[in-house]
Parts: sequence; structure tokens; C-alpha cells
Amino acid sequence: MRMSKLYMPTLREVPAEAEIPSHKLLLRAGMMRKLVSGVYSYLPLGYRVIKKIENVVREEMDRAGSQELLMSAIQPKELWEASGRWDNFGPEMFRLKDRNDREFCLGPTHEEYFTDLIKNEIKSYKQLPLNLYQIQTKYRDEKRPRFGVIRAREFIMKDAYSFDKDEEGMEKSYREMWEAYEKIFTRLRLKYKVVEGDSGAMGGNKSHEFMAMAETGEGVIAYCNNCDYAATNEKAKVVYEIKTKDEEEKDMEKVHTPDITTIDQLVEFFRSDKGNFGKALVYLASGEPIVVIIPGDRELNETKLCNYLKIPEHELEMADEETIIKVSGAKKGFTGPVGLREGTRLIIDSRITKMKNLIVGGNETDYHIKNVNYGRDFEGEIAEDLLLVEEGDICPKCGEPLYIARGIEVGNIFQLGTKYSTSLQATFLDEDGKEKPFVMGSYGVGVSRTMAAIVEQYHDEYGIIWPLVVTPYHVIITVINVKDEVQRDLGEKIYEELSNEGLEVLLDDRNERAGVKFNDRDLIGIPIRITVGKKANENIVEFSLRKEEGRIEIPTDKIMDNIRKSFEEEGLEI
Amino acid sequence: MRMSKLYMPTLREVPAEAEIPSHKLLLRAGMMRKLVSGVYSYLPLGYRVIKKIENVVREEMDRAGSQELLMSAIQPKELWEASGRWDNFGPEMFRLKDRNDREFCLGPTHEEYFTDLIKNEIKSYKQLPLNLYQIQTKYRDEKRPRFGVIRAREFIMKDAYSFDKDEEGMEKSYREMWEAYEKIFTRLRLKYKVVEGDSGAMGGNKSHEFMAMAETGEGVIAYCNNCDYAATNEKAKVVYEIKTKDEEEKDMEKVHTPDITTIDQLVEFFRSDKGNFGKALVYLASGEPIVVIIPGDRELNETKLCNYLKIPEHELEMADEETIIKVSGAKKGFTGPVGLREGTRLIIDSRITKMKNLIVGGNETDYHIKNVNYGRDFEGEIAEDLLLVEEGDICPKCGEPLYIARGIEVGNIFQLGTKYSTSLQATFLDEDGKEKPFVMGSYGVGVSRTMAAIVEQYHDEYGIIWPLVVTPYHVIITVINVKDEVQRDLGEKIYEELSNEGLEVLLDDRNERAGVKFNDRDLIGIPIRITVGKKANENIVEFSLRKEEGRIEIPTDKIMDNIRKSFEEEGLEI
Repeated sequence: MRMSKLYMPTLREVPAEAEIPSHKLLLRAGMMRKLVSGVYSYLPLGYRVIKKIENVVREEMDRAGSQELLMSAIQPKELWEASGRWDNFGPEMFRLKDRNDREFCLGPTHEEYFTDLIKNEIKSYKQLPLNLYQIQTKYRDEKRPRFGVIRAREFIMKDAYSFDKDEEGMEKSYREMWEAYEKIFTRLRLKYKVVEGDSGAMGGNKSHEFMAMAETGEGVIAYCNNCDYAATNEKAKVVYEIKTKDEEEKDMEKVHTPDITTIDQLVEFFRSDKGNFGKALVYLASGEPIVVIIPGDRELNETKLCNYLKIPEHELEMADEETIIKVSGAKKGFTGPVGLREGTRLIIDSRITKMKNLIVGGNETDYHIKNVNYGRDFEGEIAEDLLLVEEGDICPKCGEPLYIARGIEVGNIFQLGTKYSTSLQATFLDEDGKEKPFVMGSYGVGVSRTMAAIVEQYHDEYGIIWPLVVTPYHVIITVINVKDEVQRDLGEKIYEELSNEGLEVLLDDRNERAGVKFNDRDLIGIPIRITVGKKANENIVEFSLRKEEGRIEIPTDKIMDNIRKSFEEEGLEI
Repeated sequence: MRMSKLYMPTLREVPAEAEIPSHKLLLRAGMMRKLVSGVYSYLPLGYRVIKKIENVVREEMDRAGSQELLMSAIQPKELWEASGRWDNFGPEMFRLKDRNDREFCLGPTHEEYFTDLIKNEIKSYKQLPLNLYQIQTKYRDEKRPRFGVIRAREFIMKDAYSFDKDEEGMEKSYREMWEAYEKIFTRLRLKYKVVEGDSGAMGGNKSHEFMAMAETGEGVIAYCNNCDYAATNEKAKVVYEIKTKDEEEKDMEKVHTPDITTIDQLVEFFRSDKGNFGKALVYLASGEPIVVIIPGDRELNETKLCNYLKIPEHELEMADEETIIKVSGAKKGFTGPVGLREGTRLIIDSRITKMKNLIVGGNETDYHIKNVNYGRDFEGEIAEDLLLVEEGDICPKCGEPLYIARGIEVGNIFQLGTKYSTSLQATFLDEDGKEKPFVMGSYGVGVSRTMAAIVEQYHDEYGIIWPLVVTPYHVIITVINVKDEVQRDLGEKIYEELSNEGLEVLLDDRNERAGVKFNDRDLIGIPIRITVGKKANENIVEFSLRKEEGRIEIPTDKIMDNIRKSFEEEGLEI
């Protein structure tokens, strides 16, 4: 492709909206553009990357025995009502009506639809296992779209669904998809971790997330360096030492704490450790007020709370002041477990039951209570674990300390079991002559998000550094002075020769200053670079790699050898 | 692919909903499935066809210098308000709101969005011409979805947009796309005609449609065998001889015609030719009643009427009885041009002005009037041509008779001019230093519809007959008896050898009766067939083509020669 013709509107300025490197660079390099919040277009260079990612995904899915098809994005309400997700998905689902007022959604995922598809067509255990996938545009009306295509409202996803006759079959399908995903992300040269995930809106029992490591990632994971334990912070089981557990119970004592409401103020006032406080949080859960008590030095994990309450996350919200006053009789900051208004649902993280002589809100404005003890002074529902994991917590598997890292969720796999097949009555006839529901799994790869994750891992201050496997073009030939006939002709000649070798080549034949061309080439991140300059008359060019500092002068007949070496280094063939 | 694993749910029964061969066969062959009216999924075999069609389109678009990208399907209302199409598109546009109540549509087409995309990025005439395309899912909430993917509500389309600095450039871009389309449809082996089209909702001046010839097509075209004139019936200019034009004007005469309202009853009552009547039609145009008068032996062309009225088609509807009584003072069937209620807009097809001694409705229940003449007895707005073309009309170009045929619109090309660039203020700086609006064209190929059009042209009573260029698999190997080890092994061996040659091969290794396998193979239409039967022990197989009657016995070492011949015959390489 001649760059004089290429639609590649690079930007010198960093767009104000962009917060993280991938977002900035994909915009600046003319790879994508925003239409409205969370809605993007892929321009020619960016779309080439997307298609290459899709092809890696496609090849590994095919190899794993999954069959590609394409479902509609539009799905009727009835399908989602059958599974109970029409309501559960909440405002994250785009909904619309057709001209006859029939209600539809734009598919945020396709569990219901795939189940419905095979429902009347797969009748016997002999036709199982079956694994189907599609690469398709998905829609989620995110509350806070951000980070470009990482949290977008319209995005490209590969989603796959497996159908087995029993749990054992599902486990095998799950393992096969896990392995396919490892191949996919390894081929895409992503540094990633596989971590236990929360099943969230998908339902089912077990799930894992493939997290591309990135400091800018929205996903937080806890992992152990001693064993293979790794989980998202939504999922990670929290284990830590309770310091006060062996103290003796003292007498309760009401303390006047005028205007002292934040944990920092309280720590100073009581000259006590955060870990001696009981933090009360007031929420509305599906509209009903609840009070949650957790240790003062820990954060609440809302995902765990929603799982405990069995409600979708969009039905949990912080209570307003009015509700707080109603349940506690006091202003915000003075809620505690003792003396709540009768009938108020109190949920207690299990750690609280082991902590002695807690300091808690007094349910009276400007008062706290010291030396409060579970059992003696209050009771309530005990939730095993409602806490967010922290660095230094104890690995629930081996007991060593956990580390915390951030990542971008590029893939996920779910063991769904029979949740969807049961609710949609999708059954097959098993060997024993009985009708049974399919045992299902579902498997996603965020295609457009993967593009951004690659950029997060492969960039520097000047621009993107594409791995060869997904680069929009393999080679860029920069002709320093296009008005110099010798340089121009040599550039054209190399362009033709390399193209004939099956390489994807950009020829920078633009009538621009060398500096502009060098900046653009750094920005768009083409891995292999050939510079045609003053030594063109000697058939000598400069050869360099985007990922390395150095550059060498080589005769043109050595170009292919050098290119081959680069391909080999990344495990690819030309 | 082993058919024992393939998800290919063929149907023995013809689905009740399917009216035409492509719809029936694509469903029966397990290539696609309906979710709801006008919304389909492509199953593995069908999606392979779709991807092959996409690739032919992609190759020819790339070759023509167009650059691929991908825009979002979601588009904000504001873009469409700027062009005036938010209202004009009417109920055919799917509309939705996001969680913040912002209004969007699902793109039925992308003129506005492409114009907006390049608006601030292409600044100089030096960057022109530019041609961009995408292959994308489009949405139109059709009033009457039908014929499977031919008139669907969610469908796959390739849409391209050209940007030029002047009309001359646009004409050239238009011509280039025309040629690319000829290559596309020729490669896809479609018999097609290029016809003048009506620009309809796109606006602009000139357009052509690529019509795949099919008796079942919704599109009607008029064409001349003597010259190259061809046009859709919406567009075709109507020219014919008026028989009564030289008659002398007689005196008007009111005739009692009790309950005689249809044209057939009138012909019998008056013992007169249909061509002597003036047919009055009452419509509501954007809510206002109008009366249209056309010759009694012709049909009204509603597209021409809307173009004349400058309203979108969804704003034209037949008037109800109440409106008819209001404008004519008489029941339905007695409306005429003489004595309409004052102020009623009367639109007269120009042919009416040349016809003498018309018989028309009397605007009085149970009365008609004879010998009515334009000018003497009534006046109104003259519209040059509001008629539907008919076989035998005179070619407007050469004067020979026109023929009528039916087709499926698989492609269209539009000269948009500056309609969108002006309304969206998309300008560039021209050589003379002046800001000018881009001169645009837009170009569509219905990808999913093309699949159906191919089936319309390539099928017989037993199933589909895919051309090699788009077939889901090139070769099918049928093992007659999979329990016979010799047959099974030979089938496997040929399967492996042909796959290694780069062919796409289906191996029918299912434990089914030969009859079932033969029926399925006819139905799914794989072009090249190898049957492994009793002579397997002699390394002899049966070779046959789906499109031909005969079959031959050949030794296995001659299989590739025969396959190569088939590829050559369709102009392809293996």
C-alpha cells in the first residue's frame, strides 16, 4: 500500500478523552475513531489488526473442533425472559421495539439464543459434544464507557458455546477451550494470567478469566507466587489473621464523638487501629435497606455481597441519607450493629464475629460505642466472606502471601451447567432413554479489547510496537526524498519485490519531511523498517526494527534474510 | 470436515414460511435458521458461503483501490437530523435510546456517518479521491420481511463511499465501482443486468442497480433487446401510443352507473376499452388528501408519485372511504376529475391530457361522466409520468418494444453529489483556495441477499447446486457403507489427500443409509462428489458433479485430474 493513498489520519495531539496508552495511541495512529461515548470505528490500519486477531482466534477455535456460524445481534425479549435475564441484565442491555411494538435487545451475549438454536435440532446424545462459535458485534450499554475499546458499548467478541451430555463432558469441553485460549493469547504474544473469576450475570458454577497483564487494567487480580492460585479481586477468597481474636470481652461504653464520622477521624479520636473498628455500610438491595458490617481496615466486595444477596449488581446501590436515618436513627457516619431499627436486615462478614471489643457507630448522631462484641451485643446474618482481597492476604490454597496485579480481561470461560438448557427446556435423549438438559459452557474472547491490550503491552513513548502476528503491515519502506529519482525507484523496486514475497508492505511515498515520516512510522508501529536514503545509488538501505534501538546498513539483496530472521524470532513463517 | 461432527441440521419438510426456492433450500439444507420474522442466523455451511462471497467482494473492492474499515452500527440521531433522514426514513429505521435517553438508530446505511468521519480529517484536494468500504450488519425494519434473507431486517451488506473534488471525479469513481461490481457478480457466476434505478431515500441524481435475474425476484425491470436500455419498473420512463388522441371532443354526458365501480364492471357497462377511462385514485400524501388521474388501462407508479410530490414513500397511503367521500362527495368508485371539492389537489398524468372523451367517475354516488376532456372540462397539476412500465411499451431510447423481467437487487450504485457533504458541512480546500463540499458516491452489495440470489439461479428440485467459487466445501466424499473397513479406509485416505491439496472436503462418515447420504448431498449442493462403494478394494470410486446427470467410475489416482478440470471450467485454481 502506498501511504500517499492510505487513509491514515494520524494526530499530533493527544485527544483529551484518552486516559491510557492504548486509547491514546490507537486514536493518534489513525487506527480508530470515536463516534460517541463507547462507540468506535476501526479505520483501515486498525481494522487490519482486528481481522488478524480474528483470524488467530478463528484458527484456534477451528482446530479445537468448534464450528463457526453467525447469529443475529437482535434477539427477542421472550428468549431473555425465559432465562430470567431480561430483568437481571438491567440498564446494561440495549433494548428496542420494532414497528409492531415487539420488544428486542441487542445481544450483550448469546447463551439464550444458542440454547434455543439447537433446542429442536440436536435430539440425541450421539450428536454430542457440540461446540459452536461466532465472531460478532456485541452491545452493552456500559454505565461508564472508558479506555477506548476496552470498555466500549459496541464491541467485537468471539463467543462460543459447548453442549455436552454430562458434567464430565462439560469439564472436557471447558479444558479444551482453556487450551485453545492459551494458544490464542500465546500466539498474540500477550503476557497473561488465567485466574478464577466470578460468574456474575452468566450464572453457572466455575469460571476463569484470561487477564492480559497491564498496569492500566481495570481488572485486579490476586495471585500467589508459591502455588498456582490466581483469582480476580471480585472472586478471590479473603484469608487473613484477626489480631484481636484472643482479647477478653470488655464492657460496652458509649462515647460522644461529635462530627467524627470518617475512619481516619475515628482512628485519631480513639487512638486505635483501623482493624479495631466495625464499619457499617447502608445499601438499598433491590430497593430494600440493608446494613452490612465489615472490619474497619477492609473494603467491601460488592460482587460478593450481590452473590450473597442473589441480586444483579445493578440492583445494589448506596443508601441515601434519608434511608440511613430511617434504619439507624442517626446521621450518616454513626450507623452500627447495636440498636438498629427493628426489622432491619443486618449482614455480618464472618471476620466480625471473631473480632473482640469493636468500636462501632452508636445509631445515635454524634455517638459511637466501644467494646462491642458479636453474640453478646448484637446478632445478624453471617456471610462467610464479603471482603476485597489485599496484597499480603494469605493464599487460600497454600498459605503464602498473595500479590496483587492489574490486568485487562481478554477472555473468559464459564461452566454454565444446565442453567440455560433447563430454563429454555432444551433437552436431548440420553443413552438410557431419558430426556436430559444439555450441560453447557460458554467462552468469550474480547477481540477489539485484545487489540487494546496488545497495545498496552507493546508500546513506548513514540507509539505502538506491533508484534508481527497482528501488525497491520509487516514492513514499512521510507523513501527519505521522493523527489530523488534514484531513491524513489529503489523504494518502488523493494516494495514490489517484498510484496511478491507475500509480505504486507507500506511504501511511504509521501512528499513529506523525513522527520514527519519517521514520527508516523514510530507511531503506527510497523515492526520492520527499511529506509531508502542517500546510499540508494549503491543499493544500500538502512534496516531497523521498531522494537529495537539499533539500525544497520545492508545491501538490498540481504533484506529478505533479515526479514526472515524477524519472522523466525516471533515463530512465524512468511 | 467429518459430517459425523458437522452441525448441519437438514430438514426433510419444507418450512411453511418459505415461499421461494432459495428460502426453502437454505433452510432445508441447514444453512440458515429464522429467529423471528426477517432475522436469520447463518449455520456453519451457510456462513462459509457468506464468508466466500465477502472475500470476493473484498478482493475486488481492494483491487479497485477502496480501503476497508468498520464503522459502528449504532449511530446518533443528530447525524441523521443533519441530513434530514431521521424523519424521512420513517418506520423502516430501528431506533433506540441509551441509558441516558440519548437517541440512536441502528444503521440502515452509512452515508451520514462516513461523511462525518472524514469531515475533519480530509482537508485538501490533494488527499482526494478517497474510497472507503465496510462489510457490516445492517438494520431495516421492513414492513413485510419475506423471502428469507432477500428481504430481511438484519442483513449483511458491503457499503462503500467515494469522495471526490468534483463531478468529473465522482463520475470516474462511479465508473470504477460499476466495473468492480461487474467483476464481483461475474466471479460469483450470477446472471445479472445493470439497470437504471430510482435514487429513493439515498437522494442524488443517478443510480444503477445490479439485478440478478430470477423469476422470483421482487424487482421488476424493463429492458430493450435492441439497445442497452434497462431500468427498474420504479424508474423506467413510460412511452406508449395514445389511441384516442386524434378523436373529436364530444359533449359531456352524465350516466347512471348504480354500484358499478371496478374497471372491469365499467368496461362491460360502457362496452368500451379500458384505455378510454380516466382512473382516479385518492391518496393521503403526508396526511393531505390528493386525487391522481391516470389512464384506465395503466397502473400508478407510487415511486414516481412520491418523487413528484417530494415525500418519502412511507408518507404516501391510500385514502380511507371517509376521505374519499370528503373530496369527491361520493362513495368509493365514483371519484373523477370534474367537480371535486374546491381546493382538492388534482394531479394528472400527462397522458390524460392527450386522451379524448374520457369516461370518469362523476363525484356523485352511482354516476359516471362520459366524454370528459382535459382543458375543456377540468384542469390540474400535470405530472409528466406517473405510470408503471409494461411489456410492449416503447423503449424511450430507441423506440423498439420493451421486455419485462424479474430480478433480485444484489448491488446498487448512487451518484450522491453534494447532498450529504453540504448538509453535514463536510468541505475540503480546493486547488483554487476555496472551501468546497465533497462530491460523493455510495455503493452497496447485499452480501446475504447475494447468497440467496445464487441459490435462485443454481438449484434443481433436489437442492442447491453451488458454483465452486462460493460452495461451503468443494468436494464431498460419500462412503456408502462405513461399517465396511475397506470403504471407510479408502474414504479417509482420499479425504486426507484432497485436504492436503488445499481442497475443502466433506467426508460423509455418518452411519446412515446410502439414500439419506445421497439426498443430503444433493440438498446441500456440494459441486464435486466422490462415492466410495463396493469397488473400493480395486481403488475405484464414482466421480460425479452436482450440476450434471452422469457419473463415471475412475481409479483414485485420476481424482485430482477430474477435480482440476472442474476448477478450470469455472475459471478457478486450486
